[in-house]
Amino acid sequence: MIAERLCTLREEDGAVAVLDQTQLPHRHAMRHLASLADAVHAIRAMLVRGAPLIGVTAAYGVALALKEGAGDEALARALETLAAARPTAVNLGWALARMRGRLALLPPARRREAAWAEARAIATEDAEANRRIGAHGLALLEAAPRRPVNVMTHCNAGWLATTAWGTALAPVYAAREAGLPLHVWVSETRPRNQGLLTAWELREAGIPHTLIADNAAGHLLRQGLADLVIVGADRIAANGDTANKVGTVLKALAAADCGVPFHVAAPCSSIDLACADGAAIPIEERGGDEVRRVAGFDRHGAPATLAIAAETTPVANPAFDITPARLVTGVVTERGRCAPDGLRALAGGSP
Amino acid sequence: MIAERLCTLREEDGAVAVLDQTQLPHRHAMRHLASLADAVHAIRAMLVRGAPLIGVTAAYGVALALKEGAGDEALARALETLAAARPTAVNLGWALARMRGRLALLPPARRREAAWAEARAIATEDAEANRRIGAHGLALLEAAPRRPVNVMTHCNAGWLATTAWGTALAPVYAAREAGLPLHVWVSETRPRNQGLLTAWELREAGIPHTLIADNAAGHLLRQGLADLVIVGADRIAANGDTANKVGTVLKALAAADCGVPFHVAAPCSSIDLACADGAAIPIEERGGDEVRRVAGFDRHGAPATLAIAAETTPVANPAFDITPARLVTGVVTERGRCAPDGLRALAGGSP
Repeated sequence: MIAERLCTLREEDGAVAVLDQTQLPHRHAMRHLASLADAVHAIRAMLVRGAPLIGVTAAYGVALALKEGAGDEALARALETLAAARPTAVNLGWALARMRGRLALLPPARRREAAWAEARAIATEDAEANRRIGAHGLALLEAAPRRPVNVMTHCNAGWLATTAWGTALAPVYAAREAGLPLHVWVSETRPRNQGLLTAWELREAGIPHTLIADNAAGHLLRQGLADLVIVGADRIAANGDTANKVGTVLKALAAADCGVPFHVAAPCSSIDLACADGAAIPIEERGGDEVRRVAGFDRHGAPATLAIAAETTPVANPAFDITPARLVTGVVTERGRCAPDGLRALAGGSP
Repeated sequence: MIAERLCTLREEDGAVAVLDQTQLPHRHAMRHLASLADAVHAIRAMLVRGAPLIGVTAAYGVALALKEGAGDEALARALETLAAARPTAVNLGWALARMRGRLALLPPARRREAAWAEARAIATEDAEANRRIGAHGLALLEAAPRRPVNVMTHCNAGWLATTAWGTALAPVYAAREAGLPLHVWVSETRPRNQGLLTAWELREAGIPHTLIADNAAGHLLRQGLADLVIVGADRIAANGDTANKVGTVLKALAAADCGVPFHVAAPCSSIDLACADGAAIPIEERGGDEVRRVAGFDRHGAPATLAIAAETTPVANPAFDITPARLVTGVVTERGRCAPDGLRALAGGSP
């Protein structure tokens, strides 16, 4: 599959190369990250995005930071700077906690090598976790009452959001491998249009799909045109409340109203048992220009942006929303599936 | 107010001039309609939009058509051609039925003058109906528990969608006149971004507002940031099921889930008692390029469009959705307010 040609992140001569997702699908450009500042910028400006990939990039960001100095102060500064890059995805904090745990008690001289090894382990485990999410989630698609199975998703929780396979799309890819006929409804996901990344992934994988405006999801669900909804997660609270890309809760409400199952697919690293419920999850507010402007490509195919509203138009731009656990049919992780109230049992032994 | 400087439609030397809303807010260009074909194009290509204004334009379209011939055949052809221009807004069929009723029994020689007079009457009554909708709806805003009152709307149901005042925005303008402090949440309303028209109207009127991506509505409602939702309607079935711009039902579901009142404001001409429920309302499917492309303005301020998806990307683009009556708190018409199950009593005597 496509991941063999392109990848979201790879090591490169003691540095890291990431696929610049702000230029997709128009350009496939790898961006070289050589320092802590590069890693922070890549996360903050969304060159890399998707909770699992943010975690992996942050882990490599620690390794990059230690090139400049591996003492306690440098390590603490790296961890702190990376933690502040984006607030909502818990994988960021999870990966940094894991790096701290691995590195803090080592003598500085041994930290550099250990940092690269640990970041590599996090990346490898992410790919493996996602493959398992695909296997566990496949049963949900197989259980759908008709063929092709109509899956609705939101934003991009495909391989572009991870090191491989994706989370919400992992079952879709597994279904494709299993020969299950399926079709995916792809919401454009304003304001950043990550749905276009999903459309691009699916096209590359030869999976039938249809792009829709975010507004159309309710109509399609009410018309019975989706058998299930699967989305990723940026953070799942202990009670099952789920933070994901803004607009997710609207799909969850519509799915619940229509009796359509609504599933969240995410690795256990996205589950935050320290967070009692959704009210405790910080919601990132991003710049208003994301709403005032649209990125695309001009008639020559060159990347371009266009203003849709005046610069002085007041804008609110929450990047995530909380879907309450009561609207979540089930959570699919690498350890299996569970109801939202079973998270503690499923993920309790999580690192 | 702004309607004194600009208007959506006016008579001009035996023809009609309409404000070309596809160029707003970047350009204020009036387009000259001189024939039946011009009127049909204006409706179909959305130079004019909004159910009430579509009805008024269709009425004038009949008057324009009769310039070329006022016999029975010409009249029938004009009515039929205009009726097919767009399917969802019932005001189109309502205005045409009214024109037919006024003209069919007249001798052809008297039809031309009568057509202009009847179109003019429909336009005048629309403005008056909307002013009354504003007065009846004002009480809803006054009853909100805090100041400023936070109103959420969808699409554009302002004066641009009518001959004056608007429907959903009429109570907002009435509140402004009454000195009630208020703030409006404006969804951009992809794919055609009519929310930008609402933002422009509100800015011109000096009413505080904030633009949001459609996806953000659920989050804002769940955060308690809206006191009520008011939308317009393209057709209200006898049971209260309401067709309105796609995305409306997502807001209605979120409002219901949060206990926020959800009101529909529309003239009685938008109520279709012949339509038992929402399932009988035709939903227009528009071209995929509306989703694949975005209109805005370039850095020189010139109108431009940008592709966000490849031309070959499969797209579904339903332009409306149905909000079931159970999610509608109340309907505001020029005759007063009622619950959705009171429409027949309220509008039964409607022409």
